[in-house]
Amino acid sequence: MKIRVNEVGPRDGLQGQGKTLSTEARLELIRALVNAGIRHVEAGSFVSPKAVPQMAGTADIFPHLPNTETVRYAGLVPNMKGYELAVAAGARVVNVVLSVTETMNQKNISMSLDQTAQVCTEIVERGRSEGIEVQAYLAVAYECPFEGMVSPEVVARFGRQMQEAGASKIIVADTIGAANPEQVRRVLDVLIPSVPSEKLSCHFHDTRGMALANITAALDRGISEFDSSIGGLGGCPFSPGATGNVATEDVVLLLHSMGYDIGIDPLNLVPVVKFAEELTGVSLGGKSYRWLDQQYRKQRGKSGHGR
Amino acid sequence: MKIRVNEVGPRDGLQGQGKTLSTEARLELIRALVNAGIRHVEAGSFVSPKAVPQMAGTADIFPHLPNTETVRYAGLVPNMKGYELAVAAGARVVNVVLSVTETMNQKNISMSLDQTAQVCTEIVERGRSEGIEVQAYLAVAYECPFEGMVSPEVVARFGRQMQEAGASKIIVADTIGAANPEQVRRVLDVLIPSVPSEKLSCHFHDTRGMALANITAALDRGISEFDSSIGGLGGCPFSPGATGNVATEDVVLLLHSMGYDIGIDPLNLVPVVKFAEELTGVSLGGKSYRWLDQQYRKQRGKSGHGR
Repeated sequence: MKIRVNEVGPRDGLQGQGKTLSTEARLELIRALVNAGIRHVEAGSFVSPKAVPQMAGTADIFPHLPNTETVRYAGLVPNMKGYELAVAAGARVVNVVLSVTETMNQKNISMSLDQTAQVCTEIVERGRSEGIEVQAYLAVAYECPFEGMVSPEVVARFGRQMQEAGASKIIVADTIGAANPEQVRRVLDVLIPSVPSEKLSCHFHDTRGMALANITAALDRGISEFDSSIGGLGGCPFSPGATGNVATEDVVLLLHSMGYDIGIDPLNLVPVVKFAEELTGVSLGGKSYRWLDQQYRKQRGKSGHGR
Repeated sequence: MKIRVNEVGPRDGLQGQGKTLSTEARLELIRALVNAGIRHVEAGSFVSPKAVPQMAGTADIFPHLPNTETVRYAGLVPNMKGYELAVAAGARVVNVVLSVTETMNQKNISMSLDQTAQVCTEIVERGRSEGIEVQAYLAVAYECPFEGMVSPEVVARFGRQMQEAGASKIIVADTIGAANPEQVRRVLDVLIPSVPSEKLSCHFHDTRGMALANITAALDRGISEFDSSIGGLGGCPFSPGATGNVATEDVVLLLHSMGYDIGIDPLNLVPVVKFAEELTGVSLGGKSYRWLDQQYRKQRGKSGHGR
């Protein structure tokens, strides 16, 4: 079975960092990821540079993305203006984010849940009419930092709405890393009758250490696409407990070990983690990183490229 | 459903540390664990102090173990002499270890696989006749560092042998942290027809970051007991990539979040991790520890005990 790993480090990862990288440095990170075998990348977002300075210049990145015939790149857009900027920059896939609770929308983007759902629906519909793929994130799908536990029925309702509008993919996002495998099963079991598993993707953070367990539970439900971020890049470096997306190397190693066809050698990710560390100045690496690094050194030693 | 968490930090954890703790310090760690709600502890091993100085004096620990009416303590024994020492010290539960590959036995204890199986069988049978519970570990059950992948049929054969001899529990041990959820299912599916799931327990290391995913897979197969080590204590501090047992706080948080009845509040483990760090001088903490520590500080602040 073919499983897709969607790298979100260049967007979700970098946007939470204290250091703002140049567009050239962001492109270098993307090139390193693609060279390591990554074939799905969220390359940046088309948001106000005042709100998210880390993402300024995404429009300059898209025309220079490598291997566009074989790699699928997406850009995140917050509204119709962002959609237009993304399409103008050459994006063929755009992502919209619909947080499924009222308070999260109010606090995060000063819009009501209904307004956000409306904006997302309009972007999805316009994308469909213009031949642009639009993927819809359902954020805080398990737990909202303001409203607590989220009902699976709410997730299913908005999933259905985005599916009916024509979203190419619905991504169930555990934005604050609160999900456990039991909840993952519950949410997917309620959601899948409305949105078939092949149109679903899952986005986990590893805050409570359960991301790989959650991915295992989602695989059991037929999910075949997962977001991850190289080295676990993400979260806020100023908040000690806030950890990032599940690390790409952890997800790739899990899937590779389980025998899934992903087309990425986990060891190839080791130098990319190191490179992301150099670029961001942040110490990175998922739970498997120390072991992978050891294996990498052994292999490199054997092949004569070691020190 | 009731799930048991068996704390192996005082044995499997401490025996790999550079620093040898006093028997009083080892007892203090056990007391802290028991105060936090732990009800199953591997308290030490009855091995040669020359071979494993960290475990010297285990015979002096057993008579002083706290809450013996409510807490189940086990002692590891390598041979019949160890069994006799354990029983003399008051142990009511002893653990034997049967590595299921030839080379692992040769390298580790200079015995053949057949010899080890014979010794383990004799201890199990003697324990049964003397009213002592004997639990049998099947070590390197997924992968052997010398022989590579292990066939599930081999695990099932030795599981059956220990079960027929009268072992009270068969513990399937991923000694080097190599298992993935798919393998866990495969091994358990072959093993369970010979040894019913309620007599099985699973022991995982988190070397490749998959321990919680493996536990999730084992829960699905009806396994209701798991080994873990406080703070992930274990492995060898001199070997950078060697990580320890899966951390108790990670396992407890996973099970607690999934709604299983374990009788342990994950936050109660935070000060025990800190205490284990003080005792060993090693930086500890599982994947969830930073988040748990944050929650612990918040809760302690609210209850007026914070700084």
